[in-house]
Amino acid sequence: MTDPENHVATLNAINALAPFNTWAGLEVLSASAGHAEIAINWRTEFGQYAGFLHAGMVGALLDTACGFAAVNQVGPVLTSHFSVSCLRPAVGERFIARATLIKPGKVQCFAKAELFGITKGSEKLVATGEAIMVVTGSPVSG
Amino acid sequence: MTDPENHVATLNAINALAPFNTWAGLEVLSASAGHAEIAINWRTEFGQYAGFLHAGMVGALLDTACGFAAVNQVGPVLTSHFSVSCLRPAVGERFIARATLIKPGKVQCFAKAELFGITKGSEKLVATGEAIMVVTGSPVSG
Amino acid sequence: MTDPENHVATLNAINALAPFNTWAGLEVLSASAGHAEIAINWRTEFGQYAGFLHAGMVGALLDTACGFAAVNQVGPVLTSHFSVSCLRPAVGERFIARATLIKPGKVQCFAKAELFGITKGSEKLVATGEAIMVVTGSPVSG
Amino acid sequence: MTDPENHVATLNAINALAPFNTWAGLEVLSASAGHAEIAINWRTEFGQYAGFLHAGMVGALLDTACGFAAVNQVGPVLTSHFSVSCLRPAVGERFIARATLIKPGKVQCFAKAELFGITKGSEKLVATGEAIMVVTGSPVSG
Repeated sequence: MTDPENHVATLNAINALAPFNTWAGLEVLSASAGHAEIAINWRTEFGQYAGFLHAGMVGALLDTACGFAAVNQVGPVLTSHFSVSCLRPAVGERFIARATLIKPGKVQCFAKAELFGITKGSEKLVATGEAIMVVTGSPVSG
Repeated sequence: MTDPENHVATLNAINALAPFNTWAGLEVLSASAGHAEIAINWRTEFGQYAGFLHAGMVGALLDTACGFAAVNQVGPVLTSHFSVSCLRPAVGERFIARATLIKPGKVQCFAKAELFGITKGSEKLVATGEAIMVVTGSPVSG
Repeated sequence: MTDPENHVATLNAINALAPFNTWAGLEVLSASAGHAEIAINWRTEFGQYAGFLHAGMVGALLDTACGFAAVNQVGPVLTSHFSVSCLRPAVGERFIARATLIKPGKVQCFAKAELFGITKGSEKLVATGEAIMVVTGSPVSG
Repeated sequence: MTDPENHVATLNAINALAPFNTWAGLEVLSASAGHAEIAINWRTEFGQYAGFLHAGMVGALLDTACGFAAVNQVGPVLTSHFSVSCLRPAVGERFIARATLIKPGKVQCFAKAELFGITKGSEKLVATGEAIMVVTGSPVSG
């Protein structure tokens, strides 16, 4: 995908500033104004007691995807509220979260995201989420 | 606090089974039927881009506390839904989450939790959360 | 739209049993397994202090649409949790809510919905919502 | 309860401006900065298909209580997001919602509320809720 406005580069720059994202090996797969797609590869230390992806990791992916979907359209944001629906056990060799900005705003933004577990190339929706964010100010330079 | 029913031991056993919790150094501080208190010490790799505790970590602590509050009263659970309200920037040398089971049930449980950032011994409420969990079956032996 | 399985009739039967729905003049526009579309015409008594559709009415439409989307696929349900994001002032001569069942289940179902305000034939998305429901038992006969 | 700052009067003035609240017979029982208590008496037209209080009415009471808890401390607000946990069938001769402002702010406020069904003088917690509101401007004169 071409990215004439360097949306991916902007997100990679923010991503590199977040130690948690670096620890998790979080990758930015694609981005456009109001959209972002991120991924991680499964590691044992991401697991909860039953071996599924920990709810904290599920939330991290959904919320980060929502934030990244917003950044390219409205600049830096901070999450006020997010919620996660755990539809199925979050299992996979890899996880991809895709987010869409539903409503940009000068003060508040609303976004939603879906999380897929990937096993042998097959995607399964494991969780959905939504986030409300406040716009914090001037854009981070890419 | 005395713990005649070994609630803390039960939670420590579950905690030890969760690699994410072990990675985060998550401690069980106290527990009783319908209540749990857990903590982590700040580490740089828990941070988001602005240096605050990552929303994923905020969610992990609130959701885990809710789950632990439920386990001692209804046995093992899996989260169906959780939500997080980020009231203030989540900063601190240490973070403590305290959860209460609002409504036990045979099928579903409802819990709520608060997350405090601790700086120089002073606690500040930084986030609140709630979780809906499904009861999954027989108790994990402590 | 043809409705060989009488999904609309099933929902109309439930709708007629709910006095609140009757009071609101709630109509079932269309339905299929996992989908439902309902509507009301604006009346002054639906308003909050600023003249917009009251948040309670917004929630009623979104939650009812989610429930109706579930009923045709899994039978009668009761809502455990629902949430509403108010994207814009809810104004219109008429309001339409469209819901989709995201994840059916024997115990729990997850659905999402969108609410549109209609003014002079033009639709505007004013709110989104989601609901978690528990399946309660045998189907209501249509 | 004395009310030297006329918090109840302020809320009654707003309440009278909201046709939905008037229709529902919504009463303001008590109020102080960051707190509000409201009630309705059961009427058949508030019911859903099984005879319980309709989820829309549950949401209306919880959200309105949250808004009223905010108004006395920060001035007029509009809800951005609210969520409702339905703990038990919402039955009662009367319903009381009590809300507390958790976090006031210049831009956003966070509040939580509990809804009780009253039967023969006995209160039972039937639902909990939370709301995020944006502060809209100058105070409504009481």
